[in-house]
Amino acid sequence: MSSPADSANLMEAVVSLAKRRGFIYPSSEIYGGLNGFFDYGPLGSELKKNIRDCWWNDLVRRRDDVVGLESSIIMHPKVWEASGHVAGFTDPLVDCKVSKQRYRADQLFWAAVVVDGKTVGHVSALESEKTGEELQAAAETFKRKKAITGTLAPVTPKDFTEATEAEIPLIPSPATGEPGSLTPPRAFNMMFETNVGALKDASSVAYLRPETAQGMFVDFKNVVDTTRVKLPFGIAQIGKSFRNEITPRNYIFRSREFEQMEMEYFIHEDADWAKCHEEWIVWCETWLKSIGLPASHLSRYAHPKEKLAFYSKGTVDIMFKYPFGVQELWGIAARGNYDLGQHATASGKPQELFDEATKKKFVPHVIEPAVGVDRILLAVLCAGYAEEDVKDEKGNVEKRTVLRFSPRIAPVKVAVLPLLKNKEQLTGRAQALYKKLQRRYAVQYDDGGAIGKRYRRQDEAGTPWCVTIDFDTIEKPGDTFTLRERDTMAQRRITEAELFALLDAQVY
Amino acid sequence: MSSPADSANLMEAVVSLAKRRGFIYPSSEIYGGLNGFFDYGPLGSELKKNIRDCWWNDLVRRRDDVVGLESSIIMHPKVWEASGHVAGFTDPLVDCKVSKQRYRADQLFWAAVVVDGKTVGHVSALESEKTGEELQAAAETFKRKKAITGTLAPVTPKDFTEATEAEIPLIPSPATGEPGSLTPPRAFNMMFETNVGALKDASSVAYLRPETAQGMFVDFKNVVDTTRVKLPFGIAQIGKSFRNEITPRNYIFRSREFEQMEMEYFIHEDADWAKCHEEWIVWCETWLKSIGLPASHLSRYAHPKEKLAFYSKGTVDIMFKYPFGVQELWGIAARGNYDLGQHATASGKPQELFDEATKKKFVPHVIEPAVGVDRILLAVLCAGYAEEDVKDEKGNVEKRTVLRFSPRIAPVKVAVLPLLKNKEQLTGRAQALYKKLQRRYAVQYDDGGAIGKRYRRQDEAGTPWCVTIDFDTIEKPGDTFTLRERDTMAQRRITEAELFALLDAQVY
Repeated sequence: MSSPADSANLMEAVVSLAKRRGFIYPSSEIYGGLNGFFDYGPLGSELKKNIRDCWWNDLVRRRDDVVGLESSIIMHPKVWEASGHVAGFTDPLVDCKVSKQRYRADQLFWAAVVVDGKTVGHVSALESEKTGEELQAAAETFKRKKAITGTLAPVTPKDFTEATEAEIPLIPSPATGEPGSLTPPRAFNMMFETNVGALKDASSVAYLRPETAQGMFVDFKNVVDTTRVKLPFGIAQIGKSFRNEITPRNYIFRSREFEQMEMEYFIHEDADWAKCHEEWIVWCETWLKSIGLPASHLSRYAHPKEKLAFYSKGTVDIMFKYPFGVQELWGIAARGNYDLGQHATASGKPQELFDEATKKKFVPHVIEPAVGVDRILLAVLCAGYAEEDVKDEKGNVEKRTVLRFSPRIAPVKVAVLPLLKNKEQLTGRAQALYKKLQRRYAVQYDDGGAIGKRYRRQDEAGTPWCVTIDFDTIEKPGDTFTLRERDTMAQRRITEAELFALLDAQVY
Repeated sequence: MSSPADSANLMEAVVSLAKRRGFIYPSSEIYGGLNGFFDYGPLGSELKKNIRDCWWNDLVRRRDDVVGLESSIIMHPKVWEASGHVAGFTDPLVDCKVSKQRYRADQLFWAAVVVDGKTVGHVSALESEKTGEELQAAAETFKRKKAITGTLAPVTPKDFTEATEAEIPLIPSPATGEPGSLTPPRAFNMMFETNVGALKDASSVAYLRPETAQGMFVDFKNVVDTTRVKLPFGIAQIGKSFRNEITPRNYIFRSREFEQMEMEYFIHEDADWAKCHEEWIVWCETWLKSIGLPASHLSRYAHPKEKLAFYSKGTVDIMFKYPFGVQELWGIAARGNYDLGQHATASGKPQELFDEATKKKFVPHVIEPAVGVDRILLAVLCAGYAEEDVKDEKGNVEKRTVLRFSPRIAPVKVAVLPLLKNKEQLTGRAQALYKKLQRRYAVQYDDGGAIGKRYRRQDEAGTPWCVTIDFDTIEKPGDTFTLRERDTMAQRRITEAELFALLDAQVY
């Protein structure tokens, strides 16, 4: 098995395949696109739906302690005051006054150019996998261009938030290469703002939610009062969120419109939060593996205590090895009872439960696993992508591209292929099987071209199985088909009942 | 069977049950709510998901000629210029300068008070089922209060868009009862506006989509180029849309954030559009019946030719008899090739297909069935709601409330009830069945309270079947359970295999 040699090539190959096969399109492409927005095509929308459905089925329907919710994207603005988002959901923004480019200060790196112990200038570079090397190279270029002699010290990269007032005018803009045009960082709120109602003033301002989580907190009492939930229990939601990112990047990894799957798991204030936290981390890891992400690509990152918000008891991120680096996939936060407490204060409505044992009221604590559907989708695309040299029927080596999706999330579960399209016995049997499969599964019927070519087409779409209706099907007893398995390319004969049993076991 | 006597009572009963059982909550309720926004609770989010899934499965997965799409909510602003929404997606807005109330001009009705052939004053009323009667009563009150003698003529209700410049100052505001404070109607654009990027000016304005349909048009070429679709074919999408309604009303029927299920079905320019249009109307009607809406509540309304947009070939609405009147549920529009043509012009990118037969390029025409998930959900709640007098085990008459949901969309398919909660043989068998069912269906386990009470609880949630594990299950051969059917309340014995066969046949 061979795969694209390095990470950049893999990313390029994934983006290209995703476009070519209708997984992902840039939004509004005929109008030149809109930075940070994407559309999901026929295969992509099926893949996305399957990821959502697996999560919902496993978490909400197959557990007894989690219920679902669908709260609105636009909520009362006071929700976001109480949650702290109006005041604090900001990124540090830097303007280049000359080029009109904007940068996130913590993604804009710089270093002093130090020759023989003396600072002779400054260089800058945008955050990448190789920021340090780029700054070093820029420093060397700087020294050479200015014809400075002496020994260049290794650069010490800092980000722009670490620049002092005196240093800011000395740092060159990445756009122009010249210093003097970058502004000091200012706090930029990432919530998209709109106005509700016919008046357009401060009284009508509302926000597109930057996370789905607050819906669970604001509806906490409603859920408690209208269902039979008992602690510990979770409220889970899937839905769109919006963040006006200064620099959307890495394809669908950091976009401005994205879809989240979040749960708030409420526990007693005296419960062993650390144990519960760990259990949810394990649940999330297990779930990711159940939809086909390899354990080798997953790791954990525990946020250092000193960097946590004052109310936070701990946060662990499940990291995924993307082609552009190891990045956060799923954050599992132990948030204490901060959010319910904030909403109780802001709304004047107590967010308490009554403890029958102690006869006291208390505000439940919460464990919050939060993940983005788009990030999972990108992870399964990257982890599943492979290029292989295989031999065709004549022994010639050819390349096949394959997406090794788990059957749980594959957009197409089975392709039904009549060996010939003009032989009614074959197509009739194939159509009958296809129609029967279609009642329960997403399947495709393909009678176009050589069988090998049809297999390749399905490999690229990530279809786990192809079923070929051939002459053995119609001429030999047993009514069997050729089952061709995507990853091994192994073929064996299978009956209709066996096929349904296979699907029932693997697609759930 | 008895049901709430009149429409107002039915609506009230539905809203109350929906809140009490966790179907629907007002959004941000602890902050006093936000007009026109709603949340779906544990039962509501399941019901909504099931409606979406039935539509998607029937339309996208079980048909060979329709593919799915998920385009972004925020699209390039030029999309909405080309589609005509920036210029024309407006409602006529009237302000009351005294009360600061806002009205939709076409929902604000008025009439002259004519006594003995002479206009002596004016009255007004907001649109309702009884606008005419209210205006007549108001005219009588006016005449009596002003002590005018003579014969009052029957009133002729008009809406505010029909008022002349001279009449506007004479029409009393519904808020104050006094004339002189209503402004002439002005066009109010219903798209929610926001800004994308760090700049907040005209260059960064973007809109929340007011419909999902434009996504299908803008991605038309992408879908054609990246899949194997051939005319006729459809592109279907489910997703949130937003309209800044001046007067959200009738609960979730007309809200500001809602979810649509739309398809664009592309046909050849020479195809028989009227036949195709009719086929889709029938498909939609059949689908609504398949999820349990009674044919008696459905009707058709063909938009009169003279009221159609110039490009429209015809629009038929499938109407539903809601408690507040017969209203549009599903619009099926034959839109010609207007939309693709607009985008071709605005983007400079041809939106054509090549006809192999005629060797000519052409812009396909389209049939567009568009429906709101929330409206369907409200329809199934209203049509399914019933109150009945039933006899309990002792022969006493009691009331039961039942939601007669189709098994296809019911939030809970089966409730598993052990007859006693402290008898391990019963609970063990019940748990085993429950776990097995849970792998494929949304099910509930309930061991709390008398069996009759548990049945009532499920009736209110719309659960089609209850399965009771009783002494016959564990003491008699055959491992059978009591199956209790929601609507007939009939009970019979059933085996596990028969139960799964029943579910497989009815839940799809």
